[in-house]
Amino acid sequence: MCRLVAYTGAPVFLDELLIRPPASLVSQSLAAREAKTVVNGDGCGIGWYHERPQPGVYRGTLPAWSDANLVSLCTQIRARLFAAHIRSETFGEVATANCHPFTAGRHLFMHNGQVGDYAHLRRGIDGLIDDSLYPLRRGTSDSEAIFLIAMGRGMDHDPVQAVTSALESVSQAMRDGGTTKPLRFAAVHTDGETLRAYRWASDGLCPSLYWRNIETGTVVASEPFDTGAWEEVPRGSVLTVSAGEAVRIERFAVD
Amino acid sequence: MCRLVAYTGAPVFLDELLIRPPASLVSQSLAAREAKTVVNGDGCGIGWYHERPQPGVYRGTLPAWSDANLVSLCTQIRARLFAAHIRSETFGEVATANCHPFTAGRHLFMHNGQVGDYAHLRRGIDGLIDDSLYPLRRGTSDSEAIFLIAMGRGMDHDPVQAVTSALESVSQAMRDGGTTKPLRFAAVHTDGETLRAYRWASDGLCPSLYWRNIETGTVVASEPFDTGAWEEVPRGSVLTVSAGEAVRIERFAVD
Amino acid sequence: MCRLVAYTGAPVFLDELLIRPPASLVSQSLAAREAKTVVNGDGCGIGWYHERPQPGVYRGTLPAWSDANLVSLCTQIRARLFAAHIRSETFGEVATANCHPFTAGRHLFMHNGQVGDYAHLRRGIDGLIDDSLYPLRRGTSDSEAIFLIAMGRGMDHDPVQAVTSALESVSQAMRDGGTTKPLRFAAVHTDGETLRAYRWASDGLCPSLYWRNIETGTVVASEPFDTGAWEEVPRGSVLTVSAGEAVRIERFAVD
Amino acid sequence: MCRLVAYTGAPVFLDELLIRPPASLVSQSLAAREAKTVVNGDGCGIGWYHERPQPGVYRGTLPAWSDANLVSLCTQIRARLFAAHIRSETFGEVATANCHPFTAGRHLFMHNGQVGDYAHLRRGIDGLIDDSLYPLRRGTSDSEAIFLIAMGRGMDHDPVQAVTSALESVSQAMRDGGTTKPLRFAAVHTDGETLRAYRWASDGLCPSLYWRNIETGTVVASEPFDTGAWEEVPRGSVLTVSAGEAVRIERFAVD
Repeated sequence: MCRLVAYTGAPVFLDELLIRPPASLVSQSLAAREAKTVVNGDGCGIGWYHERPQPGVYRGTLPAWSDANLVSLCTQIRARLFAAHIRSETFGEVATANCHPFTAGRHLFMHNGQVGDYAHLRRGIDGLIDDSLYPLRRGTSDSEAIFLIAMGRGMDHDPVQAVTSALESVSQAMRDGGTTKPLRFAAVHTDGETLRAYRWASDGLCPSLYWRNIETGTVVASEPFDTGAWEEVPRGSVLTVSAGEAVRIERFAVD
Repeated sequence: MCRLVAYTGAPVFLDELLIRPPASLVSQSLAAREAKTVVNGDGCGIGWYHERPQPGVYRGTLPAWSDANLVSLCTQIRARLFAAHIRSETFGEVATANCHPFTAGRHLFMHNGQVGDYAHLRRGIDGLIDDSLYPLRRGTSDSEAIFLIAMGRGMDHDPVQAVTSALESVSQAMRDGGTTKPLRFAAVHTDGETLRAYRWASDGLCPSLYWRNIETGTVVASEPFDTGAWEEVPRGSVLTVSAGEAVRIERFAVD
Repeated sequence: MCRLVAYTGAPVFLDELLIRPPASLVSQSLAAREAKTVVNGDGCGIGWYHERPQPGVYRGTLPAWSDANLVSLCTQIRARLFAAHIRSETFGEVATANCHPFTAGRHLFMHNGQVGDYAHLRRGIDGLIDDSLYPLRRGTSDSEAIFLIAMGRGMDHDPVQAVTSALESVSQAMRDGGTTKPLRFAAVHTDGETLRAYRWASDGLCPSLYWRNIETGTVVASEPFDTGAWEEVPRGSVLTVSAGEAVRIERFAVD
Repeated sequence: MCRLVAYTGAPVFLDELLIRPPASLVSQSLAAREAKTVVNGDGCGIGWYHERPQPGVYRGTLPAWSDANLVSLCTQIRARLFAAHIRSETFGEVATANCHPFTAGRHLFMHNGQVGDYAHLRRGIDGLIDDSLYPLRRGTSDSEAIFLIAMGRGMDHDPVQAVTSALESVSQAMRDGGTTKPLRFAAVHTDGETLRAYRWASDGLCPSLYWRNIETGTVVASEPFDTGAWEEVPRGSVLTVSAGEAVRIERFAVD
């Protein structure tokens, strides 16, 4: 299981949310060293928006706990919108190209979950990526495939519909492929303005996902990283928040 | 332009052919530091056959000149058949998954050359890979695609025909895609018994390829690495050699 | 805590002892993913002796569980004497130069344990390395320092005395530095002929160390990796074994 | 020979000076691919000051030309003071710990040049590092050693005197060690406010170093990267510039 954190609001240094909290994302990778939880040591990445429309991205294959570059960047970069991910591989080797977040133009995406039986279904699922977007396919992960499929279904205009359509097509490919394994999807997408966090699973066993308003904005995280008033993102829902606006939570269903 | 070396014969330590010669493969990457030739610093790899039917493989993203593991392995490993490659990227980022040699079962393949306009044609060319082999697709390079396409055309039974068929399909995809850029192909393939070296280009401008018999066996190389009696592999031909047998050179043409 | 395995005997493929056993070294790094034990994800390394007097070495910073090169090498290399290590950093960043095993000429060394307060004592302990050996200092770990100090105290002639002398000097430096933290030392050293495994700690809390005779030879390991008849290397002792000879266990004490 | 660039002035995006210019630092690493100049492919690094007193740092072992993280960071980070370096190894293996710039507190340092015979003199030169700063020694390069020696000679109060004192001690160690090889030193140091660029060599053969005022501030570079009005930093001199002030060039001599 991967772990992720995302934030939108007034600009904050990344370390305030990713490193300093008592159960920060980096310490969530560290935690495993003390055998308190699972390891997320198959690479890490951050993406952020500051002054340019396209996000900056740093991705590496070292575990977050030993990545000095990651720590230095989090200490220096202040952003109004950012996303961070630590990976625990389900499919796709440990490689920069398989590290989240993924980007396309001004869009950024990261995912925690899995496409059941993806090793066998990959061919068909790759086939769902639009021709025009196929050149952006850098790695072999199911997560990147879902992102690029959604990009071809209108992420610019109606992202919730685009993600829904992508997941429906992947679900159909899974049914066609005869798998009974689930499709599980906790994910964050942003176009640099609006942040959306999805939580859904074909078998109802959704990856965990929480959110919380802090003084400066809104945070989404796979698990609470401090003792604040975190709320679960309900199963089968999508959370939407733009800077300065209230969080909206709506039903999210995939047929 | 990548550079490659392959050997079959009595077992020799890899360093005898890859490191010690005056213009060795490793020094060919080093050479660039003295501005004598191009750089091949986008990763390196070796594959070898010793006691097991499947080849061993080491691949890394550091330039050969700075890869201490590569040097140690070459110093220790003695093999009857091996292949080495230093990469200069044409398409596909610097990543282990894009480093040669590529393997599938007991087969090993490495390539120097290019599929013209591959960035735009990749979708269609990936589509030529047989479904059953698609799970072996690890990276995004044109070279790996050609190998996997050929694997689906009978590399076990008639490798020359399989490679011909693969290149014909790729050529057709290039024509269909409207590119006028060339397909260039210097490559080494082996099934662990027979070594084959191909030299062909759609525009006649084949990447360089040489061969030489040494005391213990036969060597193929992108460029001569010592002052021995190297011969060019003729354009439009395939060289075939099995341990203990004489080298055969036959015409190789792609429609 | 790091983990290590060493073997001497009739040549065996490394994967037989490092990958295939139910609780193999590689799975010991993997194990953490299932929260059964601590993580050892700060790099890995193997060293082996085959035909040449100096050992071959492969070291990398990826966790063993995700290092495809490590797996391929273990599958291909057959050796009469080898050592493997997975690292959990105590001091010294995650870097190839801090990965075990360390080598000097035909000697190979790996360590599980720590020099208490090493961050503060490093200067003085580095100072114990003989001038002639200082050029071999590649990293910043306490383990490499101990090895190089011992190398300067006669590893060629009387290795047990050399290691004793090195640890006594390190202990003295620790006392001089005013630390009350312990010096703990489970280690393997070999000159390519004789394998020695040490288990000692200044506070009696020795890192675990086991050994076992198998059909082809003798194995030493931080923890049993199968259900065989493992015996503890007693605290305060050194195990000595050469190919074809019986294991000797003698008292090992540091003043 | 390494290559470096530094800037102080009004905040600019790093890519404006490091990537977009026709002969940018990144293209200087790339240039070698076209055999026009030497390769600087042994790692790269950037350091920058933005809102916090300590610099941010990114360092990696890939050649600049293939480091996607480096490119993304340069595109996103806007800084009033920054430094960039591409490495061509003279001593010290390719490792993050040997990549420039080096940092200590708010200080940042990078170097192009060499300590002649450093492999043999390293012990004595390391000995010149003050005890209190020795814990900051991460790698094995001569450049990092010079920086840490200077840090112990008053970089906070009188940096030119501190660098002079460090180089005099290193020169003395070289004489004591009996080497006749030169000490060559083109370097950039900053405390986050004032940028200093040094150019000196014991044999007069100084590494190249240029500077230029641009619209927003002042740039120092190993070689001109555009067609602007670059001036040489004279041999045996130090250039000093603080944001908003005029460049001063003074004599710099080492006994």
